[in-house]
Amino acid sequence: MKTFDQYIEQHHTEFVAELKTFCAQPSIAATGEGMANMAELVRHTMSDLGATVQLLEIAPHAPKIVYATLGQGDKTLLIYNHYDVQPVDPLNLWDSPPFAPTLRDGNLYARGVADDKGHITSRVQAIRAWRATQGELPCKIIWFIEGEEETGSPHLEPFCLANPHLLKADGCLWESGEVDEMGRPVLYLGAKGLLYVELSVQSLSGDQHSSLGTIAPNAAWRLTWALSTLKSLDETILIDGLMEHVAPPNETDLTLLKSIPFEEQKKMAQLGIDHWVGNVSGYDALTRHIFQPTCDISGIESGYTGHGAKTILPAKAKAKVSFRLVPNLEPQRVADLLRQHLDKHGFNDIQIESLSYEHPGKSDPNAEVVQAAIAAARQTYPPHQPVIYPMMAATGPVWPIAIAHGTPMVGFGISYFGAHIHAPNENIRLADYFQAIRMMGRFLANFK
Amino acid sequence: MKTFDQYIEQHHTEFVAELKTFCAQPSIAATGEGMANMAELVRHTMSDLGATVQLLEIAPHAPKIVYATLGQGDKTLLIYNHYDVQPVDPLNLWDSPPFAPTLRDGNLYARGVADDKGHITSRVQAIRAWRATQGELPCKIIWFIEGEEETGSPHLEPFCLANPHLLKADGCLWESGEVDEMGRPVLYLGAKGLLYVELSVQSLSGDQHSSLGTIAPNAAWRLTWALSTLKSLDETILIDGLMEHVAPPNETDLTLLKSIPFEEQKKMAQLGIDHWVGNVSGYDALTRHIFQPTCDISGIESGYTGHGAKTILPAKAKAKVSFRLVPNLEPQRVADLLRQHLDKHGFNDIQIESLSYEHPGKSDPNAEVVQAAIAAARQTYPPHQPVIYPMMAATGPVWPIAIAHGTPMVGFGISYFGAHIHAPNENIRLADYFQAIRMMGRFLANFK
Repeated sequence: MKTFDQYIEQHHTEFVAELKTFCAQPSIAATGEGMANMAELVRHTMSDLGATVQLLEIAPHAPKIVYATLGQGDKTLLIYNHYDVQPVDPLNLWDSPPFAPTLRDGNLYARGVADDKGHITSRVQAIRAWRATQGELPCKIIWFIEGEEETGSPHLEPFCLANPHLLKADGCLWESGEVDEMGRPVLYLGAKGLLYVELSVQSLSGDQHSSLGTIAPNAAWRLTWALSTLKSLDETILIDGLMEHVAPPNETDLTLLKSIPFEEQKKMAQLGIDHWVGNVSGYDALTRHIFQPTCDISGIESGYTGHGAKTILPAKAKAKVSFRLVPNLEPQRVADLLRQHLDKHGFNDIQIESLSYEHPGKSDPNAEVVQAAIAAARQTYPPHQPVIYPMMAATGPVWPIAIAHGTPMVGFGISYFGAHIHAPNENIRLADYFQAIRMMGRFLANFK
Repeated sequence: MKTFDQYIEQHHTEFVAELKTFCAQPSIAATGEGMANMAELVRHTMSDLGATVQLLEIAPHAPKIVYATLGQGDKTLLIYNHYDVQPVDPLNLWDSPPFAPTLRDGNLYARGVADDKGHITSRVQAIRAWRATQGELPCKIIWFIEGEEETGSPHLEPFCLANPHLLKADGCLWESGEVDEMGRPVLYLGAKGLLYVELSVQSLSGDQHSSLGTIAPNAAWRLTWALSTLKSLDETILIDGLMEHVAPPNETDLTLLKSIPFEEQKKMAQLGIDHWVGNVSGYDALTRHIFQPTCDISGIESGYTGHGAKTILPAKAKAKVSFRLVPNLEPQRVADLLRQHLDKHGFNDIQIESLSYEHPGKSDPNAEVVQAAIAAARQTYPPHQPVIYPMMAATGPVWPIAIAHGTPMVGFGISYFGAHIHAPNENIRLADYFQAIRMMGRFLANFK
């Protein structure tokens, strides 16, 4: 791969310029800003790479999917990325404008540079370097680049399930990855699922004077009581039957977990706490973090929340509740168990609206695509060994894109612990960027 | 009292004009709008009545108290009113501008007409009619008119406790009263107290991605769990020791309660419910309503409450909690019990900020001022008997004004069930207004 690496070195300036072009184009899925122009930029880039490109309409008025195919070979690699980014607020906390990509001290700052535009361009540039130095691609590549990841991919699952032929592959390269604080490449083999619901209740036709609190029902109390039956003070999820469905980590999972460095004191200090909840520490905490579901209040609102005192009895209350799901906890199953639980505990007045969901998905660590990534990581980052997460604690559409079709997946890439993903001053270190391009070349070589 | 009644009839137009003048002057304590001009209008009216008037500064920049004395006699009557009104929003729901008093179908619409400006002018006009037809007043009157009632009288208690000589009286006429749907005059002999606190908790240095919900503490959960220990699903207040201090109603209280018509089906229909909470109905519900304390969430807020799904782990949560207090439940005692309770149940991370408080207060039904009002009600509203509430379920400063000084109090007045107090289209029926003037004359005659 010497000529491959040389090509990359010779094209630093050009590669960074291309990355800047991607980052200078706004593409905020939540507001729609720049989405069509960004799709066009991606389409154009793929065409230039020699790919056959289509813009797929996933739903009326939804950002289109850029669907590109290129290369030939016995194996097919599916690459999943997204060209949309998070909103930029709070804008005043950015040190340079979010869509004016800016180099400072070897880092490139821009919204989306780490999540996930730099991943797209680094892979484009690796393919370009491969073609220029190694000849034809060693496998067929299907590249699936959506534009709604940051709004929860609301139209993705039905599209993927209805069009499995578009996704048929031997392995999937996931959107992103990172290096940890020790410089070790981090690989992800799956992601938790999600069920995000809004619970709401109306107890009265309208807010009342709180003197009626002796005899009239208070929506905030109803919701508080209902929520308090979902999880106990010791962080045990109490929804009847839910924990019975949780698949425990297997031996391979636990072996991978043990290779993950978990600097818990440092992590706790960052969060401003001195112990984990759920009475765990060390690898028990990490195991809980990766293999246990969550049941969390992401927001709650009722009645008067302004300055000072207003003595009302609120008629309405609502809470956003998120469940991060581990294998065997399917979103619909959890929604059903939640409804049954609330009814059984006397809360049939609590309405449940499902706002977002995603199935959990996990790959076999022995799959070829995973082994190709592990080997590439060892070749790219010596003397470091890769850190392998059998599953992300976070969520992404790994199930509809890959796992549902029997395709194992792995994620690696350009990000790092200081990337401020979703936050002001999102950035990458350019050194990580070029390492990821080199790793992509080795990954292609190993996957063939 | 024939000439007294005739005088009132002859001055209908003039009395209504004076009431309109009062209502046309904005006086919103919450914003300060018109407060100084309103105080001046009240001062001027009292001076014209021949009173000795002072404007008392209760706190720097706070609306002044209009303090007037007039008349001579063996007995002293203290009258408590307030010249401030509630804010007018939502303005678009008013059928006529809130500070443009408007007559429609015998009712006068204006912000503050029922609460409590009409009470002030009706009493002024009764005194004027008395002087014109009966001669000198039969008692000494101390008239205490504050300007911060609608913001919870934040400076009143320390002022009253420091200046008891200003409030020394044999009986107190409270700010307001009403007639019920059957036309019966309603008298109030006391009011519940209040403790209004904000509970808050911070669990992390900042909001986090909700994937950390397995191991990092969620402020919304902490608050939900803490709140759920305060009151059970069957509406029993669980704060350790609190209910032990609740004074049960005595025989006289229960006798008065039995005379109160409680049209619960109608009331429930208005509220949009089909049963009371706490497993009570009929007079048990009314007894609970008047003689039990409340523990209510008036507001709660944490995390993301906007449109759709945002998967955060909230670092902060807060709730407004109000306690309506019955005799023997003093605000400080309840605050202390709340702190002890939270600590005992493992919630020493929950902060308590006291935002407002008021002591409960209740008069002896046999007190002369109460008996004078009962007799006057019978004389004014035959064949109706007065409906006597031993205590309001709501709160007012009866304790610092009257009860703390050993002064029994009673409230009666011009309002009615459709007055929309604190709401758009606040109004009174002019017929009730003139009845209240007549009752005031008879009350003075009886109290002498």
